[in-house]
Amino acid sequence: MRGVGAERSDAITSRDNKWLKLFRAALRGTGPRTGEAIGVEGPKFIEDALRSGLEADALLVSESGELHAAAVLRAASESEAGIARSRVLRTTDKLFESAAGTDAPQGIAALFRQPEWSLEDVLRGAGAMRESAALVIVLAEVQDPGNVGTALRSAEAFGATGAIATRGTADAWSPKALRASAGSALRLPVMRGMAVPILLAQLRVAGVKIYAARSTPGAADLDSAAGGISLQADLREPAAIFVGSEGSGVPEQILHAADAIISIPTSAAVESLNAGVAASIVLYEAARQRTEAARTASKI
Amino acid sequence: MRGVGAERSDAITSRDNKWLKLFRAALRGTGPRTGEAIGVEGPKFIEDALRSGLEADALLVSESGELHAAAVLRAASESEAGIARSRVLRTTDKLFESAAGTDAPQGIAALFRQPEWSLEDVLRGAGAMRESAALVIVLAEVQDPGNVGTALRSAEAFGATGAIATRGTADAWSPKALRASAGSALRLPVMRGMAVPILLAQLRVAGVKIYAARSTPGAADLDSAAGGISLQADLREPAAIFVGSEGSGVPEQILHAADAIISIPTSAAVESLNAGVAASIVLYEAARQRTEAARTASKI
Repeated sequence: MRGVGAERSDAITSRDNKWLKLFRAALRGTGPRTGEAIGVEGPKFIEDALRSGLEADALLVSESGELHAAAVLRAASESEAGIARSRVLRTTDKLFESAAGTDAPQGIAALFRQPEWSLEDVLRGAGAMRESAALVIVLAEVQDPGNVGTALRSAEAFGATGAIATRGTADAWSPKALRASAGSALRLPVMRGMAVPILLAQLRVAGVKIYAARSTPGAADLDSAAGGISLQADLREPAAIFVGSEGSGVPEQILHAADAIISIPTSAAVESLNAGVAASIVLYEAARQRTEAARTASKI
Repeated sequence: MRGVGAERSDAITSRDNKWLKLFRAALRGTGPRTGEAIGVEGPKFIEDALRSGLEADALLVSESGELHAAAVLRAASESEAGIARSRVLRTTDKLFESAAGTDAPQGIAALFRQPEWSLEDVLRGAGAMRESAALVIVLAEVQDPGNVGTALRSAEAFGATGAIATRGTADAWSPKALRASAGSALRLPVMRGMAVPILLAQLRVAGVKIYAARSTPGAADLDSAAGGISLQADLREPAAIFVGSEGSGVPEQILHAADAIISIPTSAAVESLNAGVAASIVLYEAARQRTEAARTASKI
């Protein structure tokens, strides 16, 4: 019942196989360093990545993963780079599990070359978003990879042109962030590990407004000075919005350098919003404002 | 260096101790059944729960948890119900770890009695929100406890009066949902395990409008018919907003019964939003609209 190729004599049968080690490191790590491959698990994510134009270095298929292999190989052959036959590797379910990063692995994984995004890409966007003003979410020391992934997923959903992660932020291409992003981390232009002073300088040169978002407990109560839930920022111009971790918020040096603070008013009982949610809400608000502006313009 | 009471002869020294088993079930389970206790781990969450008026059934302190015990016992003695001296239990770090649900346990945990919330509570809110029109988030078959917790955290942040979980939704009082909610699940009025037909009937009787939220991929693109990001719903009146799981969305029977669908437009590349994010955005939007309405009214 195995698919074509499953019986190849060069199937991986040792835990110490060079390729298996590379897959293990990529699928269980905290994200690839410079030059290392991005590990992607599961047929859907792999096909998505191939369709987004990423170049596969290798494909690993276990016995039970064979049923997904045909569709993935078809997607690979339709992609620009394809995938070399010699890099389609077979192994046993047991060895696959020893390398997989998920609890219920589907028996198919791939290694991809890192895409190379420039600041220009991040400000301009990929594909359909190329027409709109820059909208960049900057994750400043957001340690939880789930929150990083959630923010990237919402960034793509709400038409951000790109995302930037500062040093100290969980890697957008780590297995956990990739999963939480539902693949957006591989489609959206992303820059990782940026040093804050350099980033701030580059954004200024590019004419992008710098915003720092934070939740303000108590401000949502209607009798407070700020008066209920309302983001007072104008997010229609080119904008980079910094979001920090839940515990410590946006770092001081960014708060000082920012052109404006976006306060997300919340009720007094809640100390902060989930970092992924805070990013999602400012992105939604930016998209909402841009839509209204476009509507008004088209009516005139 | 141990605190008062650490040397008590009745410290728990067996894995099979009745109390240790109860703690293990509560701290590692998927949420309490009727009559069972809610397990809460860590000094901050326990103090929060005591301050919100929850009644502690028992407190478990390990050797390394002693340093948190004084503050927790103070919060308990200041709470209405207090905590009986005989229910402050000591154990070893090793046995505590055998019961704890977190990777790096802080050595202190509590069992709380389930709060009893009625539909009236959920529609009216607790504390400061009692003045505003009902705003209820309904989680319909949202299986991931992290997303349930995220939604509850945002619900409290944006002034929802309460939350309802239908059958098939991960338990709001499960350890994972509690942690993701950052304690909101224990403060916000919550009803769990509701049957959908009964719930719909009760909401109608109470005069609450029923909304079903879903993301609409492609609708965010400005050249589409819907025309960009904009929730077309009026969320200022009493509202119950249903959010479904990421895979299957809001169940059919709710879509049919709803007074209106809230479409969250997203770019075509993204299949859906994270369920916790979708809930957060409709709650933010409801709060935003209510704030604007209140502002306009105060200007007249």
